[in-house]
Amino acid sequence: MTEGSVAPVATRGPVRVVGTGLLGTSVGLSLATRGVDVVLHDSSRTAMYLARDLGAGRPATPDDDADVRLVVVAVPPDITADVVRAELAAHPSAVVTDVASVKGYVLDELRASGVDLRRYVGSHPMAGRELSGPAAAVPDLFVGRPWVLTGTGEPDAVLAVRTLATDLGAVPVTMDAAEHDAAMALVSHVPQVAASLVAGRLTDAPDAALSLAGQGLRDVTRIASSDPRLWTSILAANAGPVRDVLVALRADLDRVIDALGHADLATGPETVAAGALGTVATTIAHGNTGVARIPGKHGGAHREYRVVTVLVPDAPGELARLLADVGDAGVNLEDLRMEHSPRHPMGMAAISVLPDRGDHLENELAARGWRLAS
Amino acid sequence: MTEGSVAPVATRGPVRVVGTGLLGTSVGLSLATRGVDVVLHDSSRTAMYLARDLGAGRPATPDDDADVRLVVVAVPPDITADVVRAELAAHPSAVVTDVASVKGYVLDELRASGVDLRRYVGSHPMAGRELSGPAAAVPDLFVGRPWVLTGTGEPDAVLAVRTLATDLGAVPVTMDAAEHDAAMALVSHVPQVAASLVAGRLTDAPDAALSLAGQGLRDVTRIASSDPRLWTSILAANAGPVRDVLVALRADLDRVIDALGHADLATGPETVAAGALGTVATTIAHGNTGVARIPGKHGGAHREYRVVTVLVPDAPGELARLLADVGDAGVNLEDLRMEHSPRHPMGMAAISVLPDRGDHLENELAARGWRLAS
Repeated sequence: MTEGSVAPVATRGPVRVVGTGLLGTSVGLSLATRGVDVVLHDSSRTAMYLARDLGAGRPATPDDDADVRLVVVAVPPDITADVVRAELAAHPSAVVTDVASVKGYVLDELRASGVDLRRYVGSHPMAGRELSGPAAAVPDLFVGRPWVLTGTGEPDAVLAVRTLATDLGAVPVTMDAAEHDAAMALVSHVPQVAASLVAGRLTDAPDAALSLAGQGLRDVTRIASSDPRLWTSILAANAGPVRDVLVALRADLDRVIDALGHADLATGPETVAAGALGTVATTIAHGNTGVARIPGKHGGAHREYRVVTVLVPDAPGELARLLADVGDAGVNLEDLRMEHSPRHPMGMAAISVLPDRGDHLENELAARGWRLAS
Repeated sequence: MTEGSVAPVATRGPVRVVGTGLLGTSVGLSLATRGVDVVLHDSSRTAMYLARDLGAGRPATPDDDADVRLVVVAVPPDITADVVRAELAAHPSAVVTDVASVKGYVLDELRASGVDLRRYVGSHPMAGRELSGPAAAVPDLFVGRPWVLTGTGEPDAVLAVRTLATDLGAVPVTMDAAEHDAAMALVSHVPQVAASLVAGRLTDAPDAALSLAGQGLRDVTRIASSDPRLWTSILAANAGPVRDVLVALRADLDRVIDALGHADLATGPETVAAGALGTVATTIAHGNTGVARIPGKHGGAHREYRVVTVLVPDAPGELARLLADVGDAGVNLEDLRMEHSPRHPMGMAAISVLPDRGDHLENELAARGWRLAS
């Protein structure tokens, strides 16, 4: 997609963005690219000027206040309610939304403060990166991602935020705050804790052990590089739902630990208790069932793709040559994953394609001299 | 790499491969490709003939027994010792190795049986996929991967297995069995359990919750699609070391659960106990430290790369065009990760490059009309 194909937007400026971290700057970049007047504010002037320099908008001035029609609050969850309340007061005719990843806590705080919430719409775009800050912002961060609207606010206010989401390329989804928070605990917050705990166990590991790490460990722990300050705020703001899932997870873990205590083949077959191996097998099988439920790229299940694995020499242009050959074969690449090994100039490219294209692609690639597996 | 560049091998045939699953068939494919006479055996004739049809070797006959110089046992860990013992007896002048992912259990069983272990060398190639069976085999599965030798056997026997590893393109690493098993618990077996437990929690999740799943959840749970039978065997054979790490992980988890019970912002600031937020932050920060220790592609730490993120339209040839532009810019791609969203024809390509090439690449790609983030 090039600059020429930018779609027209329905959102009219000026839009005020409060908090120029990853999300706020990305909102600003995307709107500014589309010609909307974006005014920026951040308690850190460094962050605000950096966002400006990246093209996310211009610094807010008091003169702008009266004109602002829409305010996007993009600050950590623990201060979101305070900022939303201040923005509602400062811009009496503007719609105010926030993009905090926890919704019930923010709404409860706002309600407790007694503020009029007719112009407030809680929202949460499902967009993030393991990087943070304005420098990590991407104008297309929201493209194709679900954008949850939690249904507060009057219809006109909801429409304004829905239009913002659509203008940014996101897919609006309506959900109440509690439902949203329980969902996030399950699909985002608990996976973060699990990744951090597994990675944390590596802190004191011998170097020799780490040298045996494979792609599986890398995948499981990738998000463990996330920002501690942001995640402390998220987890504390969604503590109840996260704790509920973690307690259930601990019960599952207890069963595995107990089963392994009674399923140790090394202590001899006579000590393997009835059912212990079954518990271990069921744990892995439940994982199979759960992972198969995660929607894939086009909303389907993961397994609808056929994976073709190809050896790629680690030299400039080799992967491009492979993908050009995939294109020449008339096959659309649905997903691509690289697997690497330490200290070796080779990689494996795992190419996902629609199942009925797999055989054709394998034949075409083999004919072009690529090494692959069936 | 094309057929013409196959390196000469030092391993002399016939090599007997017992167990034609993913690893055994991959060993056979790789050796057969290099001109070694490979004879195959599997208790499942279907698996054995499938491996033959894939080019992994020929079915073993009784006539081969006297000539066999090297036996590779590639069966599940729980039956490995029995098969190794039978192979040592059946081929009195052959070196026997196994590729089971658990080494102490196999060695203990063999020692307990009183068999002479001078011709036995326990080994473990760090190669696997979330797929299993002969159809998933890849001739280059071992290329660049560490291949652990556990130091049993006489020097000639060790040399034969070391040569096998080198011929298959692997990097031999010496480690004792207990050290190996503790390492695998940490970098492979416990991450598998964690991924399965997180994925297992999704089994009963509402569809709406799953529709919010992002790349983080996909990464954390990818290996949860692994084979339950194989993993039950691995976990039971390494039950002690795995249990030790899981018990430590549970203690970490207990601390997080306890902290979240006292760090719930939603219950009001006066209920947030001193230290509770610190415990949460420390958990995430320890994860940062741990994940940074995982060696990257060239044996360095993950963070030595600069990530350039580019928006890629979901059309045949677009990714190839991007990577061709990366090649044209004279930049070597160190890693590539695609991120997708449900129901949208766009993807983000996260391109890792050496840090001093990042600015150059961004300038070059921007000049060619690609949308990217800094």
